[in-house]
Amino acid sequence: MNFSQYSSTLLENAVNEFSKLPGIGRRTALRLVLNLLRQPEEDVDRFTSAISAMRHEIKRCKICHNISDTDICHICASPSRDAQTVCVVENIQDVMSVENTQQFHGLYHVLGGLISPMDGIAPIDLEIESLVKRVQEGEVKEVILALSPTAEGDTTNFFIFKKLSPFSVKITTIARGVSIGDELEYADEITLGRSILNRMDFVESFKL
Amino acid sequence: MNFSQYSSTLLENAVNEFSKLPGIGRRTALRLVLNLLRQPEEDVDRFTSAISAMRHEIKRCKICHNISDTDICHICASPSRDAQTVCVVENIQDVMSVENTQQFHGLYHVLGGLISPMDGIAPIDLEIESLVKRVQEGEVKEVILALSPTAEGDTTNFFIFKKLSPFSVKITTIARGVSIGDELEYADEITLGRSILNRMDFVESFKL
Repeated sequence: MNFSQYSSTLLENAVNEFSKLPGIGRRTALRLVLNLLRQPEEDVDRFTSAISAMRHEIKRCKICHNISDTDICHICASPSRDAQTVCVVENIQDVMSVENTQQFHGLYHVLGGLISPMDGIAPIDLEIESLVKRVQEGEVKEVILALSPTAEGDTTNFFIFKKLSPFSVKITTIARGVSIGDELEYADEITLGRSILNRMDFVESFKL
Repeated sequence: MNFSQYSSTLLENAVNEFSKLPGIGRRTALRLVLNLLRQPEEDVDRFTSAISAMRHEIKRCKICHNISDTDICHICASPSRDAQTVCVVENIQDVMSVENTQQFHGLYHVLGGLISPMDGIAPIDLEIESLVKRVQEGEVKEVILALSPTAEGDTTNFFIFKKLSPFSVKITTIARGVSIGDELEYADEITLGRSILNRMDFVESFKL
């Protein structure tokens, strides 16, 4: 007889499902499942319902494609945001990162990925046409490209730049340079080289 | 206006629920939730159903109190296990640990914890009376105490030993000594001291 390592297939199924999550091994999965087993049934129901509701009911904002509980997300719907400036980001985590800086008061456009022939991600798979359409409508005055400084990010930046060049819209990109608080000796040479080429007026830099 | 960090309360609820799990911070919770958001709805349903079924349907074996899908667990129900030997463990993880050694062919008794006045865990909170009852029934010839070598483990060992002393049952405890494969210089002095006091015949040790 070949009994499972777990004395219960109910337990085993739960461990199997948990260990499909990224970074969760079987040992951690077992620890989490045994923890849930010790919780009151209502608490476990709240856990599973929250995940189920999230997966089934969450929406994508029809304008910026950020996740939202409503058809138009609260950022796009807010009258206090500057609708003339659109920050283009790869994914919803990046929206959160930029929002956390509290330095940006415009709207977003979530591409849903970066162009990557290696991973089979073509421009058509991303929300690029919808960005072009937003710009075409005329209200947007500046598009800030805030993509990762990687080969895929640069390819995507260039593709969007070409697509938007027929329109009278200002296209900018986030500054690349030595991270604030970093020791200069630990900065990689490409970043350091770029930060010298893109050097800025000392007095101006204080105004930021 | 104080908007949430997340652009969706559905997302936020799911992150909140995940971050209640031990060792899962908000950052990890967000990563896990966003991963689930990318999975097909069926897969997420399978995840939530497995956890829900586990929590609502899992049982405790009426004999050994190990978790089980049936009233009597597969170990207690197995005719190939030695019903005269009962290994007393703290929790269900310890059953798995001992089973993994493939060295034990008897039955188990899961206490559900250790006596710990500091944490308010009294003997009455544990499955000690049911162990006494099992021994009282007469079939059990040996009780192996396999509790952690801690103050709580020792207290519990002693308590059970006293409770079982009226009965003609052999009471043993797992050997404590230097871990196999460990360098002697890294063994703590109490373990090393015990392993000298409990030294065994060299030829006998090869028979194991």
